Amino acid sequence: MPAPARDGAASTLTGKASPMGAQSGPRVERDLLGEVTLPPGVLWGVHTQRALDNFPISGNTIGSFPDLVRGLVVVKQAAARANLALGYLDPTRASAIDGACQHILQNPSCHKQFVVDAMQGGAGTSTNMNANEVIANVALGLLGEKPGTYGVLHPNDHVNMAQSTNDVYPTALRLGLLLAVDPLLVALEGLHEALDKKAETFDGILKVGRTQLRDAVPMTLGQEFGAFRTAVAGEIRSIKAHAAAFEQVNLGGTAIGTGLNTDPRYASTVMAELRSLTGRPMSSSPDLIEATSDVGAFVLFSGALKRLALKLSKMSSDLRLLSSGPRTGLGEIVLPAVQAGSSIMPGKVNPVIPEAVNQVAYLVAGHDLTITMCADGGQLQLNPFEPMIGYCLFTSIKILRAAIETLTTRCISGISADRARCQYLFDLNIGIITALVPVLGYDTCSALAKRALAEDRKVTDLITEEQLLSPERLAALLQPDVLTRPNIGCVPV
Amino acid sequence: MPAPARDGAASTLTGKASPMGAQSGPRVERDLLGEVTLPPGVLWGVHTQRALDNFPISGNTIGSFPDLVRGLVVVKQAAARANLALGYLDPTRASAIDGACQHILQNPSCHKQFVVDAMQGGAGTSTNMNANEVIANVALGLLGEKPGTYGVLHPNDHVNMAQSTNDVYPTALRLGLLLAVDPLLVALEGLHEALDKKAETFDGILKVGRTQLRDAVPMTLGQEFGAFRTAVAGEIRSIKAHAAAFEQVNLGGTAIGTGLNTDPRYASTVMAELRSLTGRPMSSSPDLIEATSDVGAFVLFSGALKRLALKLSKMSSDLRLLSSGPRTGLGEIVLPAVQAGSSIMPGKVNPVIPEAVNQVAYLVAGHDLTITMCADGGQLQLNPFEPMIGYCLFTSIKILRAAIETLTTRCISGISADRARCQYLFDLNIGIITALVPVLGYDTCSALAKRALAEDRKVTDLITEEQLLSPERLAALLQPDVLTRPNIGCVPV
Amino acid sequence: MPAPARDGAASTLTGKASPMGAQSGPRVERDLLGEVTLPPGVLWGVHTQRALDNFPISGNTIGSFPDLVRGLVVVKQAAARANLALGYLDPTRASAIDGACQHILQNPSCHKQFVVDAMQGGAGTSTNMNANEVIANVALGLLGEKPGTYGVLHPNDHVNMAQSTNDVYPTALRLGLLLAVDPLLVALEGLHEALDKKAETFDGILKVGRTQLRDAVPMTLGQEFGAFRTAVAGEIRSIKAHAAAFEQVNLGGTAIGTGLNTDPRYASTVMAELRSLTGRPMSSSPDLIEATSDVGAFVLFSGALKRLALKLSKMSSDLRLLSSGPRTGLGEIVLPAVQAGSSIMPGKVNPVIPEAVNQVAYLVAGHDLTITMCADGGQLQLNPFEPMIGYCLFTSIKILRAAIETLTTRCISGISADRARCQYLFDLNIGIITALVPVLGYDTCSALAKRALAEDRKVTDLITEEQLLSPERLAALLQPDVLTRPNIGCVPV
Amino acid sequence: MPAPARDGAASTLTGKASPMGAQSGPRVERDLLGEVTLPPGVLWGVHTQRALDNFPISGNTIGSFPDLVRGLVVVKQAAARANLALGYLDPTRASAIDGACQHILQNPSCHKQFVVDAMQGGAGTSTNMNANEVIANVALGLLGEKPGTYGVLHPNDHVNMAQSTNDVYPTALRLGLLLAVDPLLVALEGLHEALDKKAETFDGILKVGRTQLRDAVPMTLGQEFGAFRTAVAGEIRSIKAHAAAFEQVNLGGTAIGTGLNTDPRYASTVMAELRSLTGRPMSSSPDLIEATSDVGAFVLFSGALKRLALKLSKMSSDLRLLSSGPRTGLGEIVLPAVQAGSSIMPGKVNPVIPEAVNQVAYLVAGHDLTITMCADGGQLQLNPFEPMIGYCLFTSIKILRAAIETLTTRCISGISADRARCQYLFDLNIGIITALVPVLGYDTCSALAKRALAEDRKVTDLITEEQLLSPERLAALLQPDVLTRPNIGCVPV
Repeated sequence: MPAPARDGAASTLTGKASPMGAQSGPRVERDLLGEVTLPPGVLWGVHTQRALDNFPISGNTIGSFPDLVRGLVVVKQAAARANLALGYLDPTRASAIDGACQHILQNPSCHKQFVVDAMQGGAGTSTNMNANEVIANVALGLLGEKPGTYGVLHPNDHVNMAQSTNDVYPTALRLGLLLAVDPLLVALEGLHEALDKKAETFDGILKVGRTQLRDAVPMTLGQEFGAFRTAVAGEIRSIKAHAAAFEQVNLGGTAIGTGLNTDPRYASTVMAELRSLTGRPMSSSPDLIEATSDVGAFVLFSGALKRLALKLSKMSSDLRLLSSGPRTGLGEIVLPAVQAGSSIMPGKVNPVIPEAVNQVAYLVAGHDLTITMCADGGQLQLNPFEPMIGYCLFTSIKILRAAIETLTTRCISGISADRARCQYLFDLNIGIITALVPVLGYDTCSALAKRALAEDRKVTDLITEEQLLSPERLAALLQPDVLTRPNIGCVPV
Repeated sequence: MPAPARDGAASTLTGKASPMGAQSGPRVERDLLGEVTLPPGVLWGVHTQRALDNFPISGNTIGSFPDLVRGLVVVKQAAARANLALGYLDPTRASAIDGACQHILQNPSCHKQFVVDAMQGGAGTSTNMNANEVIANVALGLLGEKPGTYGVLHPNDHVNMAQSTNDVYPTALRLGLLLAVDPLLVALEGLHEALDKKAETFDGILKVGRTQLRDAVPMTLGQEFGAFRTAVAGEIRSIKAHAAAFEQVNLGGTAIGTGLNTDPRYASTVMAELRSLTGRPMSSSPDLIEATSDVGAFVLFSGALKRLALKLSKMSSDLRLLSSGPRTGLGEIVLPAVQAGSSIMPGKVNPVIPEAVNQVAYLVAGHDLTITMCADGGQLQLNPFEPMIGYCLFTSIKILRAAIETLTTRCISGISADRARCQYLFDLNIGIITALVPVLGYDTCSALAKRALAEDRKVTDLITEEQLLSPERLAALLQPDVLTRPNIGCVPV
Repeated sequence: MPAPARDGAASTLTGKASPMGAQSGPRVERDLLGEVTLPPGVLWGVHTQRALDNFPISGNTIGSFPDLVRGLVVVKQAAARANLALGYLDPTRASAIDGACQHILQNPSCHKQFVVDAMQGGAGTSTNMNANEVIANVALGLLGEKPGTYGVLHPNDHVNMAQSTNDVYPTALRLGLLLAVDPLLVALEGLHEALDKKAETFDGILKVGRTQLRDAVPMTLGQEFGAFRTAVAGEIRSIKAHAAAFEQVNLGGTAIGTGLNTDPRYASTVMAELRSLTGRPMSSSPDLIEATSDVGAFVLFSGALKRLALKLSKMSSDLRLLSSGPRTGLGEIVLPAVQAGSSIMPGKVNPVIPEAVNQVAYLVAGHDLTITMCADGGQLQLNPFEPMIGYCLFTSIKILRAAIETLTTRCISGISADRARCQYLFDLNIGIITALVPVLGYDTCSALAKRALAEDRKVTDLITEEQLLSPERLAALLQPDVLTRPNIGCVPV
Repeated sequence: MPAPARDGAASTLTGKASPMGAQSGPRVERDLLGEVTLPPGVLWGVHTQRALDNFPISGNTIGSFPDLVRGLVVVKQAAARANLALGYLDPTRASAIDGACQHILQNPSCHKQFVVDAMQGGAGTSTNMNANEVIANVALGLLGEKPGTYGVLHPNDHVNMAQSTNDVYPTALRLGLLLAVDPLLVALEGLHEALDKKAETFDGILKVGRTQLRDAVPMTLGQEFGAFRTAVAGEIRSIKAHAAAFEQVNLGGTAIGTGLNTDPRYASTVMAELRSLTGRPMSSSPDLIEATSDVGAFVLFSGALKRLALKLSKMSSDLRLLSSGPRTGLGEIVLPAVQAGSSIMPGKVNPVIPEAVNQVAYLVAGHDLTITMCADGGQLQLNPFEPMIGYCLFTSIKILRAAIETLTTRCISGISADRARCQYLFDLNIGIITALVPVLGYDTCSALAKRALAEDRKVTDLITEEQLLSPERLAALLQPDVLTRPNIGCVPV
């Protein structure tokens, strides 16, 4: 994806009326419930219009999720090609549908015709019908026909041929999510790179490691940022692995997975077209009945997004803690100032970027709960709550990506170390005594630690003062290389 | 609210340049980080612009939450009046600020100047600064000055006088939520009325009551809808009670609740102005330090929204279950057909409106979790995650209200009973035997129940056949009035 | 509650066989599914035994929730008295049931007969039957009969008379929760008192207030602990208010709320008995049909427990942060050492009590979600998932109470302030400049703040050095009383 | 695992005092906080005793999680062997520790010495120290010494050698979870087999498929149960895959992952011992600093448990729906009666087993939220909330396993089909018309559907009556094989 341009479609497009051509006056369409008058110039039809009236919920249209639109259109394109190949759809109509799909994929402005609210009942039927109607009318334009002349090319009979919402919609969701994951991964790679640079830059800076907010043993600031980097690398692998589950789809199952009203060759044919259009190893779920109502891949993927969110949140909280101050906090690092922090306190600068990331993470966790409840609501041969699952996943991906990008460019990349502060706190830390246990013994070390705390002294000063170790020996034992890696072999046991 | 128009402001507005007047070319502003060039024609300033760059997260501006904007503006108006009254703000500037606030409240088109993303770090500072800057520039317009001439009237020094984001923002959130709750309550009243009508209409329709999806004892369809109505009445009370907590605010606490840099009379003066402007019994939190970091009222209110959501979800699930079919489900009621249900299955109509309500409920539950995590993230003298709390609460209210309205008008109001189906199932139900236990005894009833099930007979037929009760007696015992309320006194024990 | 001893019951108990008397050999009971052999010596019956076999889930018996047992027994006692009063139960049986209930209430050892798993299907039927059977057999003991001689006194016909699980169980849950809340409130009062003492003790200690982990403006340590105290006071009010909703119950509604098979006087009679036995203003839900399936009070109460948990968690996180160190953290307070913190690091002591409280809070939040999903699962006339709701609420109360008690006695009470550290950081803080803005102006203050940070100086030193204020004037402006409350009136504007 | 018996340990055990030998009177131990008197006969020491006093929270000891105990003991055993191999631990002590570990693994009664509460602060230190102390005292018994003679063999210096809680505890959790997953998988295999049998048995039973609770198109009951089976198969794969992440551990990282105070060869040596003891491909995390604070594998695994729970919940809800009735519900299947359902309604039987499963699922979802919040609470070099993560995961696995087992044996295995009911509803279903669309056309089918519904007729009767198809042709088109799989090729287009 995007699908390669096809000559037939292109020439049709050039030689005939514009697929988004001028409309004259309102159009009237009918369904089993009666007549509906459509606004002038729109490319959708009666089913979309009814959904607009029924679901004025969130104000977020499906068109505001461009990857979902692309997923829908690719499904329709694959189906048209399969129906042509199997002889169910004539070349003229097939070519028109194919060209219409291509046109929409290449013209994001068409997304504004996908107008139904993302929060909708009906298990995605309105979304599917919105796609069928828009594609039919664009195709009719390619054929030189007016919108609504469904006798020539019909949204249901031709665009939706051999399909049901119940296999189209779950497949389109998965394709859309695969598309949406790509830029998320790019953003994560960028974050990984920025952290990697910091890990390298901060490599030689000794500092206190802390557990349970208590002074613990030595490490380098490079190791600390290296751990962030490692975490991000793990998330890249995890997101990729969980997204791969979306390459298995239920297209071909139609209404409940039995494949009713499809040719026995249809499922494999349409899958080959999907592979060709997407360049991905798309395959059929082995049990299409199970797959029709199954939302398990969404649940696990949401769990993976939540884990990513939690890692980002932990990192952001750490950045806020490490940069706290400037005078009365830890102050080991300095985040770049990106805006004034307070109208009342002169000079205050706040860690606003990490704070935004924390909050994004918590919304992603909330979406995971929403998805959990939607998943629990599946009944018998379908889960009617996939539209909300889709809303949550696409929104989570969008805000995670944005948060990662702003975190990378406006925070991580500009972080500097307060090397002096790190050293100052490092020298204060009593916990360094741990490294001397193999030499001085646990009891002596405990006594030194207790005295240092009580007398507000440095343990190294006490050791020098009491001549427990020569300054050279002490310096050797407290070299960064000895302190920050497995080391007991360097000293006599 | 809305605050009454004040003559001074109005005349200023008429006599001078338009507060939203024509801009010529881009404007440049500075802050401690340097210069920023603003787009031509905008009324915001440098702090807003930096926030735009820092938080390109969700695409949802604070201007898309009009009640939050109104809450912010009312706080600024109250503060300006208090500062005037206490002698800290001169009448010219005070009048200009007051008039600017009035102008914005009366012109929703101004909301498009509130452009910062609702998902932001900084504990709401960017939201507060966006308000300060827009109000300052509107006020400057009223004074005949160009935007940005802050030497005349300054966003911080004058609009934000005696305020900190840390008391302005939590107060504005609360005011905004109070405003947002009103139409939610109106929607709930409408739902209550629709259910009340159905409870009355369905009063005489006997039907099977069911527990654990098993046939239980008799009731009327009116009682079933009456229970929905009672549930909604309880939610109206609950929402009102929990929203009332928002009438206590921390305005006057400034940065951390100590009221640093405020006049000792300020807190009570500004509270009186708030009461006057809103017509509500606004009061100061008794411990402003605690109140500054406290988000407890949001947590409880979110719990109340979640309970409302769960009640709506349970009702929606029941409606879907009771209307299931048309042939192979319960089919006791018929939901109005609002759109075609399937492109592949002719004539299928789905319960799309209740399905939308279920999903909205699950998103509200997800937002409750997000708020939970935000609440847990408060540290020391502030909770920096209130922007996300606000986003979730305003969004939850918005989609709940929309869901309730569509449920009322497009589903509940049009529900009809399938009286014959109710009676048919009622007659089939073996559970009616429970009502005869006081007359025939538990053992006889158990034997009758077992036989009826085994032989696929009606229990009433068996009783008549075995002459256990005369038809007249049986009919008397099975009268709706006897079956559907406390009744044991009607029969000899 | 506890119900007063009644003479009849006591004398019966004394004069006859022990109600928990020796059993000889296994007992056999039957139900509609066939025979079951009971273990020797047990007081439960066939229905309990089947439930034991069906639900070997968690290993937590209902007997391990003593307040639930007490709630159940009080319901049975009230019902027996109402049935006696209305003439449906003869004095002998009524007295035996009443006495058995009294016996169980006074002998917690009887709780071990309540053996069914707290995680059970069946909407609480097994819990109700366990109570019916144990009470019947204890009553039979009081009558000098052997366990299982149900011809004399029957678990269903007599103990469960005029009742259904569907009104007994929800009522018993509410009574049990009312009982469980009392010691939770006592624990909270203890915490409140401990915090109050600290707030007083720490009253004069000036320190840095912090927002967003950044140095902000001055406050006292007493104010900081006073805010904790205020938060706890609010939770006491909230828990009390939300628990009060449990005083409205659905007893008398029987199977689905219609009150089928009850005397019209029964509901009010049994409610009067409940009031008498509990000393609380128990009342009937106005719509018993709605009340039968309603779990709204549990949802809101769970929200209140979650809010309490979040307040405790925030306080615990603050305590960990304020005590962080001992050398490289904030170190303003010292938590009492209650155990060694590390096997590898000599002298390390960790904030283990607050850490336990955080974790308890997160389990309570998890339980709130479980309750949310259970609430969503109600269908038609009943919610079958109340047993899990009960499990979660009782467990949450138990662990919250334990966490509060250990937090109070093993942490809060022993906290000491590091007064010197507070002063040291206070003096370092640049944010104190905010208090001088009304005197020196915002611009001068900003310049001072910037220079102090850049040169690593104290702002007070710079002011003295530059003779911007006399030492006396500076000292006057920086008095604790001026810095930590509304103060602008103290200085010329 | 279990680890093979080692001769040295065994002979030591035989020849000397019992490792759990008789104790005479209370023992006194000291730590840096002072003296503690231990109860007579116990094998734990001062650190365990302090934890008992500090954490009286839940009443659930770590000993009640036997797999966690086994995980801890195996870590200690592996460490002792590694320390012996590297020459840091002498053969006598190494052999005693090794033998003690072996003794505990082989004697589950020893688990009662693991007494600290599962809900504890301190990041697992108390759990680690409980293990160190018990193992030391058992080892001392093997050496013929009294408990507490730590001069001979010390809990910290020898049992905990080269370890920190911060690498021991996360490793032990992972080992314990690997152990706990095995029987969960066995339970899932049992469920899979039971469902497979039902899928086969119900293969020929035609029935209505339903989407959105509305009558849809045909399927077989075998296909419906086959979909359950497929879902379970997917969960088996998912649980296995996510558990495999636990084979990577941070043992060797000590306090913060730098491996301070370990021999450079230690990490690889102890990992080889772990592999040998467990028979699993245990490996070291590549970045031990990141791994020390990382809880990502727990988060994802919890997500996998939640997905399993949701699948079980959906299946249970479906079983309740399909078996609803007996007279006024769907009634297509009959669940085995396992207990009486109601004390007030004669003959009522409820789907109590699936109801229990739903509730277990919701607690698992709640635990997932708890784990989410614990994960978010990690700070810098450690996550102190792993004890609650462990509590939730072990409890979730335990109750899921129990729920699956009771679902399999007490519900699924005994389900029977109501074949006549399935056929009756199948014949009523108008949705079968979908299958005739390719023959009769969409318009004719829509008209037939509408008329059938309006006149309360069967569509097949209408078709026969109107002679649209011959009875033979109709019968051929409505053969199960045609209706329940891809079929359009069987008929002329």
